[in-house]
Amino acid sequence: MGKKKAKLKAKIRRLKAELAAAQTHAGGVSPLAPAGFPDLPVIDGVRFASAAAGVKYTGRDDVMLAELAPGTAIAGVFTQSATRSAPVMDCQAKIGADSGDGAAIIVNSGNANAFTGRNGVDATAAVTGAVAKTLSLPESRVFSASTGVIGEPLPHGRMTAKIAELHSALDAGGIAGAARAIMTTDTFPKGAGAAVAINGKTVRIAGFAKGSGMIAPDMATMLSYVFTDALLEQAEMQAMLESLADTTFNAITVDSDTSTSDTLMVAATGASGVDVAGSEAFRNAMHSVLQDLAHQVVRDGEGATKFVAVHVTGAADHMDAKRAARAIADSPLVKTAVAGEDPNWGRVVMALGKSGAAADRDRVAIRFGPHPVAENGWVSADYSEDAAAAYMKNAELEITVDLGLGTGAATVWTCDLTHGYIQINADYRS
Amino acid sequence: MGKKKAKLKAKIRRLKAELAAAQTHAGGVSPLAPAGFPDLPVIDGVRFASAAAGVKYTGRDDVMLAELAPGTAIAGVFTQSATRSAPVMDCQAKIGADSGDGAAIIVNSGNANAFTGRNGVDATAAVTGAVAKTLSLPESRVFSASTGVIGEPLPHGRMTAKIAELHSALDAGGIAGAARAIMTTDTFPKGAGAAVAINGKTVRIAGFAKGSGMIAPDMATMLSYVFTDALLEQAEMQAMLESLADTTFNAITVDSDTSTSDTLMVAATGASGVDVAGSEAFRNAMHSVLQDLAHQVVRDGEGATKFVAVHVTGAADHMDAKRAARAIADSPLVKTAVAGEDPNWGRVVMALGKSGAAADRDRVAIRFGPHPVAENGWVSADYSEDAAAAYMKNAELEITVDLGLGTGAATVWTCDLTHGYIQINADYRS
Repeated sequence: MGKKKAKLKAKIRRLKAELAAAQTHAGGVSPLAPAGFPDLPVIDGVRFASAAAGVKYTGRDDVMLAELAPGTAIAGVFTQSATRSAPVMDCQAKIGADSGDGAAIIVNSGNANAFTGRNGVDATAAVTGAVAKTLSLPESRVFSASTGVIGEPLPHGRMTAKIAELHSALDAGGIAGAARAIMTTDTFPKGAGAAVAINGKTVRIAGFAKGSGMIAPDMATMLSYVFTDALLEQAEMQAMLESLADTTFNAITVDSDTSTSDTLMVAATGASGVDVAGSEAFRNAMHSVLQDLAHQVVRDGEGATKFVAVHVTGAADHMDAKRAARAIADSPLVKTAVAGEDPNWGRVVMALGKSGAAADRDRVAIRFGPHPVAENGWVSADYSEDAAAAYMKNAELEITVDLGLGTGAATVWTCDLTHGYIQINADYRS
Repeated sequence: MGKKKAKLKAKIRRLKAELAAAQTHAGGVSPLAPAGFPDLPVIDGVRFASAAAGVKYTGRDDVMLAELAPGTAIAGVFTQSATRSAPVMDCQAKIGADSGDGAAIIVNSGNANAFTGRNGVDATAAVTGAVAKTLSLPESRVFSASTGVIGEPLPHGRMTAKIAELHSALDAGGIAGAARAIMTTDTFPKGAGAAVAINGKTVRIAGFAKGSGMIAPDMATMLSYVFTDALLEQAEMQAMLESLADTTFNAITVDSDTSTSDTLMVAATGASGVDVAGSEAFRNAMHSVLQDLAHQVVRDGEGATKFVAVHVTGAADHMDAKRAARAIADSPLVKTAVAGEDPNWGRVVMALGKSGAAADRDRVAIRFGPHPVAENGWVSADYSEDAAAAYMKNAELEITVDLGLGTGAATVWTCDLTHGYIQINADYRS
């Protein structure tokens, strides 16, 4: 009886510690967050403003406006959800129609304007129409997004009432405020940038993202906006973005759930005068910015305490590698094992098995970090449970699965599944 | 400060209650369990025995043996996992080869004999060979299954040492003991039966199942064995089983993870002398037994406190209906909302949207139990948050989504996602 009580007390002690961790994460900042918002380069041709419109939240900015100079090329990829939001459908209709005019992007947090029927279409038109009028732009060049609760009418009047204020506050240095204004359950604003020398000149990239739950982007992500002063035709920018999304925002998962609002847009003002068509250096810089932002979304995953890279190599092809990596990264049993710091490689085998990817059980090799755990269809001869268990205590983990079949490879980034996730999503409506 | 402390104390109080509930579930019996193991009809031609072989657990039976009379037709469906276990592959090779001889099924718990390489194949052969010898059966008529931890060698010597004891203990009334012997993290043994009058005679069905985690069967389930004294050819039994699995074991999910050991077998001894070929009454009785067992697996879902039926109607076809129902039933955000008793229908919309099923946002209608929540692409005019929230407090819930497109319909059963699931899977290796 005394033993039972002691065990129960130990459990409550551990649970209290978990509660404290969950509360820190919910009220404070993810333990996986970067040290702070980065110093981002100023992009010539882009100005930002943010304001408190009271869409849902009080006491914080919840609307951001970005103004883009005439000639800016705009590319975008969006959620493939069958129940996608009114602003997403509006953006999809407008993307690719470059007119040489200026452009604008307006985003609110607190309300997703999704599954709001005809009212949602009208609200989007009211907001983009008001921005077009105030900034003297054609409506076809005003893009919008909304993020927050699904199914409630967007109080668009609160936003249109703030557009003159936003207009007069536009500032080339306002990107950090804009990144903050679009946060929902995020515990930190996410920014990334790069400066790359091309043909003796400097091209700059700066972007931000939001998102921490409902993250398993299908063709895009939650919301992310990236700006550059590079000169590039819209069609080429669009093709590059679709390709880079595959290994960045389309390669992350927090909870396997896909948002109705996923939006990733890149705007190239051309103000640097540097034509980056076909430039590997520019593509690499853009890739690193997108990947950095995508990683920050996972680092802010609801309840996350571990950041995990799942690498699959030796697959029959890239699609199979991605399928296997995603099945492992999405598996609740793998993610709870990571939370419990348990080197439970049997669950990795299980997730691989259900993925649908071609696999020959007797050729599969699995490593946790540098530690071989399984090979030739069984536990590795070199496997040390102690070494693997010690490795699992790290906050950043790598799980590598080689299928031994071909040259297909892919990486998917994920986080662990903890009491914090249940607490955030079972105890509060977000 | 006093307010903050009071809040924290309230949270710890709530967490302690959750801990108590989780412990009750882990140590005791699921709150969704039936009152007890049912009185099952005795099936002429089948005898059962169970024993404590100490494969992994101590102080409980962990091996069951079923002996089947000569002439028994045996049908089976198995996991499609690419990393399926050695016993599953052995069963797949043997199924369908009816010889007129008797047959046997041997199952152990505590070790899955999965991802155990050549050793796993040898272990399976050792066990089935020993049963064949003791019961004087051809090896091709001895089926086996193993359930428990993945990747550890099966100590098959402990099982073969018990086969004589099992043989002499065979008893037509031993089905409840057999159901208990194959449990792992199950909190209750799962049994179901039926007796149906056909052509003035009685045909009987009795079966059992195990499973509570790693449950998202692809073509089968965890482990389930059903016996009947009906007379039916193997090929027809196999076709019926494959068809019925679709709406029973293939229509449940606990955590979207698919086991390496899923096995569902039906054995028809023919002892009743009643030919049931083409009998609707028999098919319906078999369907109800399989569905009952499948529901019991969900009711024992790890950490489950709610049993949820997700109905999708009006889909373009059955596949689309199933795809949508499964996406909703698998969604961590839907399942945590159910745990939190939150009528968060926006998450149902989200899961429908990501499912890949054809859907026209403006035709979708959603009900929670009898309560309409959304229709025509927006919140229902009759929606009452209070009524919906009160409904969500029930332990048994129905979520109905009508797509308004066609006649495709499907139901998937699931449970909620709670702190209990995290505790069971993050804190212990199972």
